[in-house]
Amino acid sequence: MRIDIISVVPELMESPFQTSILKRAIEKGLAEVHFHQLRDYASNNYKQVDDTPYGGGAGMVMMVEPIDKCISKLKSERDYDEIIYLTPDGETLNQKTVNRLSITENLIFLCGHYKGIDQRVRDLHITKEISIGDYVLTGGELAACVLADAVIRLIPGVLNDEQSALSDSFQDDLLSPPIYTRPEIYKNLSVPKILLSGNFAKIEEWRYDQALKITREKRPDLLKDE
Amino acid sequence: MRIDIISVVPELMESPFQTSILKRAIEKGLAEVHFHQLRDYASNNYKQVDDTPYGGGAGMVMMVEPIDKCISKLKSERDYDEIIYLTPDGETLNQKTVNRLSITENLIFLCGHYKGIDQRVRDLHITKEISIGDYVLTGGELAACVLADAVIRLIPGVLNDEQSALSDSFQDDLLSPPIYTRPEIYKNLSVPKILLSGNFAKIEEWRYDQALKITREKRPDLLKDE
Repeated sequence: MRIDIISVVPELMESPFQTSILKRAIEKGLAEVHFHQLRDYASNNYKQVDDTPYGGGAGMVMMVEPIDKCISKLKSERDYDEIIYLTPDGETLNQKTVNRLSITENLIFLCGHYKGIDQRVRDLHITKEISIGDYVLTGGELAACVLADAVIRLIPGVLNDEQSALSDSFQDDLLSPPIYTRPEIYKNLSVPKILLSGNFAKIEEWRYDQALKITREKRPDLLKDE
Repeated sequence: MRIDIISVVPELMESPFQTSILKRAIEKGLAEVHFHQLRDYASNNYKQVDDTPYGGGAGMVMMVEPIDKCISKLKSERDYDEIIYLTPDGETLNQKTVNRLSITENLIFLCGHYKGIDQRVRDLHITKEISIGDYVLTGGELAACVLADAVIRLIPGVLNDEQSALSDSFQDDLLSPPIYTRPEIYKNLSVPKILLSGNFAKIEEWRYDQALKITREKRPDLLKDE
């Protein structure tokens, strides 16, 4: 998988891709991530990529031309499955979308910044708009890191223990049951006896019941679709 | 505001806090962010912080003792408004929670990793569990960055143009209307005439209508509460 990320502050995204599982995925050649500094596509000497909005109002708008140039160049080099604009106005990201994106080959992520992008970028290029949640961030950069992380970890070979991804929260629309590790008693708090029983059928049953109970209490909306 | 972030890979979070608005907020003294490497609180020489789950199953569990030691030390130094565990099992983050957290003084963010934390950490310390969305990440580190960014940008003095935060998506439960900047015509795509009219009352009306229309099309759920 190849991901091209377009941003005015690509340096913000350095450390997440140089650490832990994303680093390993890149080193193993399972994922390629390329950053593009939008200012390199600016037309004037000031490297201007934003300007005031038509009709007035607060905040700056990302100009259509530099973004169009950058995306057009990338599109001339290869076919992209999706050109994704990270924005609070997009469809809300969920695990199903992540699963779907994890089997694509080439993706562009455009990070919004300032007040947002000129509408004509959307009209010309964007095939999908994604919001990572109902809150506002400084820019789309952290959203791009979140989406890249969620997607890349699902590529076969990235996680050491593929079982682990399959038993994640949301893969079965249930939250996780409580988990425990050593010591058996800590500050008077004990591990539930069932987990020490060695009866794996009973343990699985207990875990499913707990997952259902917790989901019902905390996120009944996840069960509604059934 | 002071935020203490506990993690097994604090280096993953370096660049987001050294760039752009978070960097400026920290330099101006409006926010303090302290990273704590969980392994520094491990009991044995291997710096072990995770172990296999009781009852079997895939994935490793973060041990109670190192986390308890780290949080207990911090709590002995100051009072915390919330001790937040970032986990897909938590309450889904929204702008209202962000607004509320932005007026607190001291916060701890605990980043989950591996399969999650020993349940007893939750029983002993956690006051709030937050999920940034219905998808699974490699760890809670990016979620911690997202939450810190969303909260810190609302601290007065952090954004240059405070108006801008107030007109964000979600602050009024509406998505943003389309925005445009120069040039007036680009590749045959024109800016809507109303935005060039200079009639600001009409422009505001158009923007409100567009925001309502876009919200109705893309996120009718945001309008349901009214």
